[in-house]
Amino acid sequence: MIVSLYQSNPRFGKLAENLDEVLTAVKPHKFDLLVLPELFATGYLFSDFNQAFLLAEEAGKGYVFETIRMLAAEKNGLVIYGFPERRGKRLFNSSLAVFPNGQYLLYQKSHLFDTEKEIFSPGETGFSVFSFRGARIGMMICFDWRFPEAARKLTLLGAQIVCHPSNLVLTHCPDAMITRALENAVFTITANRIGEEIRGEKKLRFIGKSRIISPDGKVLAQVDSHQTGFIASEINPELADNKRVTENNDLLADRRPELY
Amino acid sequence: MIVSLYQSNPRFGKLAENLDEVLTAVKPHKFDLLVLPELFATGYLFSDFNQAFLLAEEAGKGYVFETIRMLAAEKNGLVIYGFPERRGKRLFNSSLAVFPNGQYLLYQKSHLFDTEKEIFSPGETGFSVFSFRGARIGMMICFDWRFPEAARKLTLLGAQIVCHPSNLVLTHCPDAMITRALENAVFTITANRIGEEIRGEKKLRFIGKSRIISPDGKVLAQVDSHQTGFIASEINPELADNKRVTENNDLLADRRPELY
Repeated sequence: MIVSLYQSNPRFGKLAENLDEVLTAVKPHKFDLLVLPELFATGYLFSDFNQAFLLAEEAGKGYVFETIRMLAAEKNGLVIYGFPERRGKRLFNSSLAVFPNGQYLLYQKSHLFDTEKEIFSPGETGFSVFSFRGARIGMMICFDWRFPEAARKLTLLGAQIVCHPSNLVLTHCPDAMITRALENAVFTITANRIGEEIRGEKKLRFIGKSRIISPDGKVLAQVDSHQTGFIASEINPELADNKRVTENNDLLADRRPELY
Repeated sequence: MIVSLYQSNPRFGKLAENLDEVLTAVKPHKFDLLVLPELFATGYLFSDFNQAFLLAEEAGKGYVFETIRMLAAEKNGLVIYGFPERRGKRLFNSSLAVFPNGQYLLYQKSHLFDTEKEIFSPGETGFSVFSFRGARIGMMICFDWRFPEAARKLTLLGAQIVCHPSNLVLTHCPDAMITRALENAVFTITANRIGEEIRGEKKLRFIGKSRIISPDGKVLAQVDSHQTGFIASEINPELADNKRVTENNDLLADRRPELY
Protein backbone atom coordinates (compact mmCIF):
# COMPACT_ATOMS: atom_id res chain seq x y z
CA MET A 1 0.00 0.00 0.00
CA ILE A 2 1.05 3.61 -0.54
CA VAL A 3 1.43 5.52 2.72
CA SER A 4 2.10 9.23 2.68
CA LEU A 5 2.24 12.44 4.63
CA TYR A 6 2.16 16.13 3.95
CA GLN A 7 4.41 18.52 5.88
CA SER A 8 2.53 21.81 5.96
CA ASN A 9 3.10 25.47 6.80
CA PRO A 10 -0.22 26.65 8.22
CA ARG A 11 -1.20 30.25 8.89
CA PHE A 12 -2.77 30.53 12.33
CA GLY A 13 -6.56 30.62 12.20
CA LYS A 14 -6.78 30.63 8.40
CA LEU A 15 -8.71 27.41 7.95
CA ALA A 16 -9.61 27.91 4.29
CA GLU A 17 -6.07 28.84 3.29
CA ASN A 18 -4.58 25.95 5.23
CA LEU A 19 -7.00 23.45 3.72
CA ASP A 20 -6.26 24.87 0.26
CA GLU A 21 -2.54 24.42 0.82
CA VAL A 22 -3.04 20.77 1.71
CA LEU A 23 -5.54 19.97 -1.03
CA THR A 24 -3.39 21.57 -3.70
CA ALA A 25 -0.35 19.64 -2.53
CA VAL A 26 -1.86 16.18 -2.06
CA LYS A 27 -4.53 15.91 -4.77
CA PRO A 28 -2.09 15.16 -7.61
CA HIS A 29 -0.82 12.09 -5.74
CA LYS A 30 -2.08 8.56 -5.23
CA PHE A 31 -2.21 7.22 -1.68
CA ASP A 32 -3.95 4.61 0.41
CA LEU A 33 -3.08 6.45 3.61
CA LEU A 34 -2.30 10.13 4.11
CA VAL A 35 -1.21 11.56 7.47
CA LEU A 36 -1.51 15.31 8.11
CA PRO A 37 -0.03 17.25 11.05
CA GLU A 38 -1.55 17.90 14.46
CA LEU A 39 -4.00 20.87 14.42
CA PHE A 40 -3.12 21.27 10.76
CA ALA A 41 -6.05 23.47 9.74
CA THR A 42 -6.21 25.83 12.71
CA GLY A 43 -2.60 26.32 13.72
CA TYR A 44 -1.23 25.60 17.16
CA LEU A 45 -0.78 28.54 19.49
CA PHE A 46 -4.28 29.52 20.62
CA SER A 47 -4.46 32.71 22.68
CA ASP A 48 -6.91 31.12 25.13
CA PHE A 49 -9.59 28.48 25.55
CA ASN A 50 -12.31 30.60 23.97
CA GLN A 51 -10.34 31.20 20.80
CA ALA A 52 -9.61 27.47 20.51
CA PHE A 53 -13.27 26.71 21.22
CA LEU A 54 -14.35 28.89 18.29
CA LEU A 55 -11.90 27.17 15.95
CA ALA A 56 -12.74 23.65 17.18
CA GLU A 57 -15.10 21.12 15.61
CA GLU A 58 -17.05 18.21 17.01
CA ALA A 59 -15.68 14.89 15.80
CA GLY A 60 -17.27 14.09 12.44
CA LYS A 61 -18.84 17.51 11.94
CA GLY A 62 -17.83 20.85 10.52
CA TYR A 63 -15.96 22.48 7.70
CA VAL A 64 -12.58 20.82 8.17
CA PHE A 65 -14.11 17.37 8.60
CA GLU A 66 -16.32 17.79 5.53
CA THR A 67 -13.37 18.91 3.43
CA ILE A 68 -11.27 15.95 4.56
CA ARG A 69 -14.19 13.56 4.11
CA MET A 70 -14.48 14.67 0.47
CA LEU A 71 -10.73 14.33 0.00
CA ALA A 72 -10.80 10.77 1.39
CA ALA A 73 -13.69 9.89 -0.92
CA GLU A 74 -12.19 11.51 -4.00
CA LYS A 75 -8.74 9.97 -3.49
CA ASN A 76 -10.22 6.69 -2.23
CA GLY A 77 -7.75 6.72 0.67
CA LEU A 78 -7.70 6.96 4.44
CA VAL A 79 -6.84 10.45 5.72
CA ILE A 80 -5.63 11.05 9.29
CA TYR A 81 -5.52 14.62 10.56
CA GLY A 82 -5.21 16.53 13.81
CA PHE A 83 -7.82 19.05 14.98
CA PRO A 84 -9.10 20.77 18.14
CA GLU A 85 -12.09 18.66 19.16
CA ARG A 86 -15.06 20.24 20.88
CA ARG A 87 -16.99 17.86 23.11
CA GLY A 88 -19.59 19.50 25.28
CA LYS A 89 -17.78 22.29 27.09
CA ARG A 90 -14.37 20.69 26.79
CA LEU A 91 -11.67 20.61 24.14
CA PHE A 92 -9.36 17.74 23.21
CA ASN A 93 -6.27 17.76 21.01
CA SER A 94 -7.50 15.00 18.73
CA SER A 95 -6.91 13.19 15.48
CA LEU A 96 -9.44 11.63 13.20
CA ALA A 97 -8.96 8.77 10.75
CA VAL A 98 -11.45 9.36 7.92
CA PHE A 99 -12.30 6.46 5.62
CA PRO A 100 -13.26 6.89 1.95
CA ASN A 101 -16.87 6.05 2.86
CA GLY A 102 -16.99 8.89 5.38
CA GLN A 103 -16.74 6.76 8.52
CA TYR A 104 -14.21 7.94 11.04
CA LEU A 105 -12.34 6.93 14.20
CA LEU A 106 -11.17 9.31 16.91
CA TYR A 107 -8.04 9.50 19.04
CA GLN A 108 -7.57 12.12 21.77
CA LYS A 109 -3.97 13.06 22.65
CA SER A 110 -2.98 11.28 25.85
CA HIS A 111 0.07 13.37 26.79
CA LEU A 112 -0.47 17.12 26.43
CA PHE A 113 2.56 19.35 25.88
CA ASP A 114 3.26 22.49 27.90
CA THR A 115 0.57 25.17 27.57
CA GLU A 116 -1.74 22.81 25.70
CA LYS A 117 -2.84 21.97 29.23
CA GLU A 118 -4.42 25.45 29.50
CA ILE A 119 -6.66 24.64 26.56
CA PHE A 120 -7.21 20.92 26.21
CA SER A 121 -8.33 18.11 28.49
CA PRO A 122 -6.13 14.98 28.62
CA GLY A 123 -7.39 12.42 26.12
CA GLU A 124 -9.93 9.87 27.27
CA THR A 125 -10.08 7.58 24.24
CA GLY A 126 -6.83 5.80 25.00
CA PHE A 127 -5.07 3.92 22.24
CA SER A 128 -6.80 1.69 19.72
CA VAL A 129 -6.03 -0.05 16.45
CA PHE A 130 -8.25 -0.41 13.38
CA SER A 131 -7.96 -2.07 9.99
CA PHE A 132 -7.91 -0.50 6.57
CA ARG A 133 -7.17 -2.46 3.40
CA GLY A 134 -5.73 -5.24 5.51
CA ALA A 135 -3.33 -2.95 7.38
CA ARG A 136 -3.66 -2.44 11.12
CA ILE A 137 -3.29 1.22 12.01
CA GLY A 138 -2.96 3.17 15.24
CA MET A 139 -2.70 6.85 16.08
CA MET A 140 -0.69 8.85 18.56
CA ILE A 141 -0.13 12.63 18.56
CA CYS A 142 3.13 14.60 18.82
CA PHE A 143 4.38 14.59 22.48
CA ASP A 144 2.98 11.07 22.93
CA TRP A 145 6.33 10.04 21.33
CA ARG A 146 8.18 10.90 24.51
CA PHE A 147 6.35 8.14 26.41
CA PRO A 148 7.47 4.75 25.13
CA GLU A 149 4.23 3.27 26.46
CA ALA A 150 2.22 4.95 23.66
CA ALA A 151 3.77 3.25 20.62
CA ARG A 152 4.25 0.09 22.70
CA LYS A 153 0.56 -0.05 23.56
CA LEU A 154 -0.38 0.39 19.90
CA THR A 155 2.03 -2.41 18.99
CA LEU A 156 0.62 -4.74 21.63
CA LEU A 157 -2.83 -3.98 20.20
CA GLY A 158 -1.54 -5.17 16.83
CA ALA A 159 -0.66 -1.95 15.01
CA GLN A 160 1.54 -2.36 11.94
CA ILE A 161 1.58 1.37 11.19
CA VAL A 162 1.78 4.07 13.87
CA CYS A 163 0.44 7.36 12.48
CA HIS A 164 1.79 10.36 14.32
CA PRO A 165 0.36 13.81 13.49
CA SER A 166 2.72 16.31 15.10
CA ASN A 167 3.61 19.93 15.69
CA LEU A 168 7.16 19.34 16.90
CA VAL A 169 9.24 22.06 18.48
CA LEU A 170 11.76 19.92 20.40
CA THR A 171 14.54 18.55 18.22
CA HIS A 172 14.84 14.98 19.45
CA CYS A 173 11.69 13.37 18.11
CA PRO A 174 12.67 12.60 14.50
CA ASP A 175 15.57 10.41 15.64
CA ALA A 176 13.66 9.01 18.59
CA MET A 177 11.03 7.75 16.15
CA ILE A 178 13.71 5.43 14.73
CA THR A 179 13.90 3.91 18.21
CA ARG A 180 10.11 3.71 18.40
CA ALA A 181 10.02 1.86 15.07
CA LEU A 182 12.87 -0.47 16.05
CA GLU A 183 11.73 -1.38 19.53
CA ASN A 184 8.27 -2.25 18.23
CA ALA A 185 9.11 -3.35 14.68
CA VAL A 186 6.38 -1.14 13.24
CA PHE A 187 6.15 1.46 10.50
CA THR A 188 5.91 5.01 11.83
CA ILE A 189 4.63 8.06 9.97
CA THR A 190 5.36 11.39 11.66
CA ALA A 191 3.64 14.26 9.84
CA ASN A 192 5.00 17.51 11.17
CA ARG A 193 4.77 21.17 10.14
CA ILE A 194 7.18 24.05 9.62
CA GLY A 195 6.90 27.77 10.30
CA GLU A 196 6.62 29.92 13.40
CA GLU A 197 3.85 31.05 15.68
CA ILE A 198 3.98 33.91 18.17
CA ARG A 199 1.65 34.58 21.08
CA GLY A 200 2.71 37.44 23.32
CA GLU A 201 6.23 36.65 24.49
CA LYS A 202 5.99 33.05 23.38
CA LYS A 203 7.46 32.13 20.04
CA LEU A 204 7.51 28.59 18.65
CA ARG A 205 9.45 27.36 15.66
CA PHE A 206 8.28 24.03 14.26
CA ILE A 207 11.07 21.77 13.08
CA GLY A 208 9.70 19.85 10.10
CA LYS A 209 11.67 16.63 9.45
CA SER A 210 8.56 14.58 8.83
CA ARG A 211 9.49 10.95 8.32
CA ILE A 212 8.23 7.57 7.23
CA ILE A 213 10.24 4.86 9.01
CA SER A 214 10.28 1.09 8.47
CA PRO A 215 10.10 -1.61 11.17
CA ASP A 216 13.87 -2.09 10.89
CA GLY A 217 14.52 1.57 11.60
CA LYS A 218 15.24 2.78 8.07
CA VAL A 219 14.05 6.25 7.10
CA LEU A 220 12.07 5.45 3.92
CA ALA A 221 11.26 9.08 3.12
CA GLN A 222 11.62 12.45 4.80
CA VAL A 223 11.09 16.15 4.31
CA ASP A 224 13.68 18.62 5.55
CA SER A 225 13.26 21.38 8.12
CA HIS A 226 12.64 24.28 5.79
CA GLN A 227 10.01 23.30 3.27
CA THR A 228 6.56 21.90 2.91
CA GLY A 229 6.23 18.63 1.08
CA PHE A 230 4.27 15.51 0.23
CA ILE A 231 6.18 12.23 0.53
CA ALA A 232 5.04 8.67 0.01
CA SER A 233 6.38 5.13 0.32
CA GLU A 234 5.01 1.90 -1.01
CA ILE A 235 5.12 -0.50 1.91
CA ASN A 236 4.03 -3.99 2.82
CA PRO A 237 2.41 -3.60 6.25
CA GLU A 238 2.86 -7.32 6.91
CA LEU A 239 6.58 -6.72 7.36
CA ALA A 240 5.57 -5.32 10.75
CA ASP A 241 4.14 -8.71 11.72
CA ASN A 242 7.66 -10.10 11.78
CA LYS A 243 8.98 -9.27 15.22
CA ARG A 244 12.07 -11.44 14.82
CA VAL A 245 15.37 -9.65 15.34
CA THR A 246 17.42 -12.85 15.10
CA GLU A 247 16.49 -16.51 14.62
CA ASN A 248 16.15 -16.69 18.38
CA ASN A 249 14.59 -13.33 19.22
CA ASP A 250 11.03 -12.11 18.88
CA LEU A 251 10.49 -8.58 20.18
CA LEU A 252 7.08 -9.36 21.65
CA ALA A 253 7.56 -12.98 22.73
CA ASP A 254 10.84 -12.02 24.45
CA ARG A 255 9.19 -9.41 26.66
CA ARG A 256 9.25 -10.20 30.39
CA PRO A 257 6.07 -8.51 31.63
CA GLU A 258 6.47 -10.21 35.02
CA LEU A 259 9.64 -8.11 35.54
CA TYR A 260 8.23 -4.72 34.50
CA MET B 1 30.63 12.35 41.03
CA ILE B 2 32.96 10.96 38.39
CA VAL B 3 31.34 8.23 36.29
CA SER B 4 33.39 6.30 33.77
CA LEU B 5 33.60 3.32 31.48
CA TYR B 6 36.25 1.33 29.73
CA GLN B 7 35.72 0.08 26.17
CA SER B 8 37.78 -3.10 25.92
CA ASN B 9 39.08 -5.50 23.29
CA PRO B 10 39.07 -8.89 25.04
CA ARG B 11 40.68 -12.06 23.74
CA PHE B 12 38.27 -14.97 24.08
CA GLY B 13 38.96 -17.11 27.13
CA LYS B 14 42.09 -15.20 28.19
CA LEU B 15 40.89 -14.03 31.60
CA ALA B 16 44.27 -12.91 32.91
CA GLU B 17 45.13 -10.97 29.75
CA ASN B 18 41.70 -9.33 29.66
CA LEU B 19 41.87 -8.33 33.30
CA ASP B 20 45.36 -6.96 32.76
CA GLU B 21 44.14 -4.87 29.83
CA VAL B 22 41.42 -3.35 31.99
CA LEU B 23 43.54 -2.78 35.10
CA THR B 24 46.33 -1.14 33.11
CA ALA B 25 43.84 1.16 31.41
CA VAL B 26 41.73 2.22 34.38
CA LYS B 27 44.14 2.34 37.32
CA PRO B 28 45.69 5.70 36.40
CA HIS B 29 42.26 7.34 36.58
CA LYS B 30 40.02 8.57 39.37
CA PHE B 31 36.40 7.45 39.36
CA ASP B 32 33.46 7.00 41.68
CA LEU B 33 31.77 4.62 39.26
CA LEU B 34 33.35 2.48 36.53
CA VAL B 35 31.29 0.41 34.10
CA LEU B 36 32.93 -2.45 32.18
CA PRO B 37 31.42 -4.40 29.25
CA GLU B 38 29.23 -7.50 29.33
CA LEU B 39 31.28 -10.73 29.75
CA PHE B 40 34.37 -8.52 29.67
CA ALA B 41 36.85 -11.01 31.12
CA THR B 42 35.79 -14.16 29.29
CA GLY B 43 34.74 -12.98 25.85
CA TYR B 44 31.34 -13.59 24.32
CA LEU B 45 31.05 -16.43 21.84
CA PHE B 46 31.18 -19.63 23.91
CA SER B 47 31.33 -22.83 21.86
CA ASP B 48 28.80 -24.52 24.12
CA PHE B 49 27.32 -24.60 27.62
CA ASN B 50 30.19 -26.64 29.06
CA GLN B 51 32.82 -24.20 27.89
CA ALA B 52 30.85 -21.30 29.35
CA PHE B 53 30.35 -23.26 32.57
CA LEU B 54 34.11 -23.69 32.96
CA LEU B 55 34.69 -19.95 32.44
CA ALA B 56 31.84 -18.90 34.72
CA GLU B 57 32.00 -17.80 38.35
CA GLU B 58 29.50 -17.82 41.16
CA ALA B 59 28.40 -14.33 42.12
CA GLY B 60 30.90 -12.93 44.61
CA LYS B 61 33.47 -15.70 44.16
CA GLY B 62 36.37 -16.46 41.89
CA TYR B 63 39.33 -14.91 40.16
CA VAL B 64 37.54 -12.22 38.21
CA PHE B 65 35.44 -11.15 41.19
CA GLU B 66 38.48 -11.03 43.48
CA THR B 67 40.40 -8.94 40.97
CA ILE B 68 37.53 -6.48 40.59
CA ARG B 69 36.96 -6.41 44.35
CA MET B 70 40.57 -5.34 44.82
CA LEU B 71 40.23 -2.74 42.08
CA ALA B 72 37.11 -1.29 43.71
CA ALA B 73 38.89 -1.15 47.07
CA GLU B 74 42.11 0.34 45.69
CA LYS B 75 40.33 2.98 43.61
CA ASN B 76 37.66 3.54 46.27
CA GLY B 77 34.97 3.35 43.58
CA LEU B 78 32.04 1.24 42.54
CA VAL B 79 32.84 -1.16 39.67
CA ILE B 80 30.12 -2.74 37.53
CA TYR B 81 31.09 -5.60 35.22
CA GLY B 82 29.50 -8.37 33.18
CA PHE B 83 30.33 -12.05 33.69
CA PRO B 84 28.92 -15.54 33.08
CA GLU B 85 27.31 -16.45 36.39
CA ARG B 86 27.20 -20.05 37.55
CA ARG B 87 24.32 -20.82 39.88
CA GLY B 88 23.84 -24.50 40.60
CA LYS B 89 23.70 -26.19 37.21
CA ARG B 90 22.57 -23.08 35.38
CA LEU B 91 24.29 -20.09 33.84
CA PHE B 92 23.10 -16.49 33.72
CA ASN B 93 24.47 -13.58 31.72
CA SER B 94 24.94 -11.32 34.71
CA SER B 95 26.46 -8.12 35.97
CA LEU B 96 27.79 -7.36 39.39
CA ALA B 97 28.10 -3.99 41.11
CA VAL B 98 31.08 -4.25 43.46
CA PHE B 99 31.44 -1.69 46.26
CA PRO B 100 34.80 -0.53 47.66
CA ASN B 101 34.09 -2.54 50.82
CA GLY B 102 33.65 -5.75 48.82
CA GLN B 103 29.88 -5.95 49.02
CA TYR B 104 28.13 -6.59 45.74
CA LEU B 105 24.74 -6.58 44.03
CA LEU B 106 23.71 -8.84 41.18
CA TYR B 107 21.65 -8.35 38.02
CA GLN B 108 20.85 -11.19 35.61
CA LYS B 109 20.16 -10.19 31.99
CA SER B 110 16.42 -10.24 31.38
CA HIS B 111 16.42 -10.33 27.57
CA LEU B 112 18.90 -12.79 26.08
CA PHE B 113 20.18 -12.17 22.56
CA ASP B 114 20.21 -14.81 19.84
CA THR B 115 22.38 -17.85 20.66
CA GLU B 116 22.90 -16.69 24.24
CA LYS B 117 19.70 -18.67 24.75
CA GLU B 118 21.67 -21.88 24.11
CA ILE B 119 23.93 -21.07 27.06
CA PHE B 120 22.17 -18.87 29.57
CA SER B 121 18.88 -18.96 31.45
CA PRO B 122 16.71 -15.83 31.31
CA GLY B 123 17.46 -13.59 34.28
CA GLU B 124 15.43 -14.04 37.43
CA THR B 125 16.64 -11.07 39.50
CA GLY B 126 14.55 -8.52 37.63
CA PHE B 127 15.48 -4.87 37.85
CA SER B 128 16.50 -3.09 41.03
CA VAL B 129 18.07 0.18 42.11
CA PHE B 130 20.66 0.78 44.81
CA SER B 131 22.44 3.79 46.28
CA PHE B 132 26.11 4.66 46.18
CA ARG B 133 27.47 8.00 47.40
CA GLY B 134 23.98 9.44 47.21
CA ALA B 135 23.41 8.36 43.61
CA ARG B 136 20.71 5.85 42.72
CA ILE B 137 22.02 3.31 40.25
CA GLY B 138 20.45 0.53 38.19
CA MET B 139 21.81 -2.08 35.80
CA MET B 140 20.65 -3.53 32.51
CA ILE B 141 22.71 -5.57 30.04
CA CYS B 142 23.16 -5.11 26.30
CA PHE B 143 20.02 -6.34 24.42
CA ASP B 144 17.84 -5.17 27.32
CA TRP B 145 18.10 -1.77 25.55
CA ARG B 146 15.74 -2.97 22.84
CA PHE B 147 12.89 -3.28 25.35
CA PRO B 148 11.85 0.17 26.56
CA GLU B 149 10.39 -1.45 29.67
CA ALA B 150 13.89 -2.14 31.06
CA ALA B 151 15.18 1.43 31.42
CA ARG B 152 11.64 2.56 32.22
CA LYS B 153 11.37 0.10 35.10
CA LEU B 154 14.72 1.25 36.48
CA THR B 155 13.53 4.86 36.23
CA LEU B 156 10.27 4.12 38.01
CA LEU B 157 12.34 2.45 40.75
CA GLY B 158 14.22 5.72 41.13
CA ALA B 159 17.41 5.19 39.11
CA GLN B 160 19.36 8.32 38.26
CA ILE B 161 22.09 6.41 36.41
CA VAL B 162 21.41 3.39 34.18
CA CYS B 163 24.59 1.31 33.82
CA HIS B 164 24.60 -0.81 30.69
CA PRO B 165 27.42 -3.33 30.21
CA SER B 166 27.21 -4.41 26.56
CA ASN B 167 28.66 -6.51 23.76
CA LEU B 168 26.85 -4.77 20.92
CA VAL B 169 26.82 -6.14 17.40
CA LEU B 170 23.69 -4.38 16.05
CA THR B 171 24.28 -0.80 15.03
CA HIS B 172 21.23 0.95 16.43
CA CYS B 173 21.86 0.89 20.15
CA PRO B 174 24.22 3.86 20.62
CA ASP B 175 21.64 6.27 19.16
CA ALA B 176 18.72 4.48 20.78
CA MET B 177 20.35 5.09 24.16
CA ILE B 178 19.82 8.82 23.56
CA THR B 179 16.11 8.03 23.39
CA ARG B 180 16.35 5.91 26.53
CA ALA B 181 18.03 8.79 28.37
CA LEU B 182 15.52 11.34 27.09
CA GLU B 183 12.33 9.41 27.67
CA ASN B 184 13.39 8.69 31.26
CA ALA B 185 15.51 11.77 32.01
CA VAL B 186 18.33 9.59 33.37
CA PHE B 187 22.06 9.30 32.81
CA THR B 188 23.02 6.22 30.79
CA ILE B 189 26.44 4.58 30.64
CA THR B 190 26.85 2.00 27.87
CA ALA B 191 30.21 0.20 28.15
CA ASN B 192 30.75 -1.78 24.98
CA ARG B 193 33.70 -3.66 23.45
CA ILE B 194 35.42 -3.83 20.08
CA GLY B 195 37.04 -6.67 18.17
CA GLU B 196 35.77 -9.84 16.51
CA GLU B 197 34.92 -13.34 17.63
CA ILE B 198 34.51 -16.40 15.43
CA ARG B 199 32.83 -19.70 16.29
CA GLY B 200 32.48 -22.09 13.35
CA GLU B 201 30.58 -20.22 10.65
CA LYS B 202 29.50 -17.50 13.03
CA LYS B 203 31.49 -14.30 13.11
CA LEU B 204 30.60 -11.32 15.28
CA ARG B 205 32.07 -7.85 15.07
CA PHE B 206 31.49 -5.65 18.11
CA ILE B 207 30.77 -2.03 17.33
CA GLY B 208 32.30 -0.01 20.16
CA LYS B 209 30.74 3.46 20.43
CA SER B 210 30.52 3.32 24.23
CA ARG B 211 28.74 6.39 25.53
CA ILE B 212 27.89 8.39 28.62
CA ILE B 213 24.62 10.28 28.01
CA SER B 214 22.93 12.95 30.13
CA PRO B 215 19.23 13.11 31.09
CA ASP B 216 18.64 15.69 28.35
CA GLY B 217 20.05 13.38 25.68
CA LYS B 218 23.51 14.91 25.29
CA VAL B 219 26.44 12.59 24.63
CA LEU B 220 28.84 13.67 27.40
CA ALA B 221 31.67 11.35 26.30
CA GLN B 222 32.14 8.54 23.81
CA VAL B 223 34.73 6.19 22.39
CA ASP B 224 34.75 5.46 18.66
CA SER B 225 34.29 2.09 16.93
CA HIS B 226 37.91 1.17 16.43
CA GLN B 227 39.77 1.66 19.68
CA THR B 228 39.75 0.76 23.31
CA GLY B 229 39.44 3.59 25.76
CA PHE B 230 38.63 4.90 29.22
CA ILE B 231 36.25 7.87 29.34
CA ALA B 232 34.82 9.74 32.30
CA SER B 233 32.39 12.55 33.04
CA GLU B 234 31.83 14.52 36.19
CA ILE B 235 28.09 14.53 36.70
CA ASN B 236 25.51 15.62 39.24
CA PRO B 237 23.17 12.62 39.54
CA GLU B 238 20.45 14.87 41.03
CA LEU B 239 19.93 16.35 37.58
CA ALA B 240 18.10 13.10 36.85
CA ASP B 241 15.58 13.89 39.59
CA ASN B 242 14.26 16.74 37.48
CA LYS B 243 11.74 15.12 35.14
CA ARG B 244 10.41 18.45 33.90
CA VAL B 245 10.54 18.92 30.12
CA THR B 246 8.62 22.20 30.23
CA GLU B 247 7.06 24.23 33.04
CA ASN B 248 3.96 22.13 32.56
CA ASN B 249 5.40 18.69 31.82
CA ASP B 250 6.88 16.11 34.15
CA LEU B 251 7.89 12.89 32.40
CA LEU B 252 6.73 10.66 35.23
CA ALA B 253 3.73 12.63 36.52
CA ASP B 254 2.41 12.95 32.96
CA ARG B 255 2.33 9.21 32.39
CA ARG B 256 -1.15 7.74 31.89
CA PRO B 257 -0.77 4.22 33.28
CA GLU B 258 -4.53 3.71 33.07
CA LEU B 259 -4.22 3.89 29.27
CA TYR B 260 -1.25 1.52 28.83
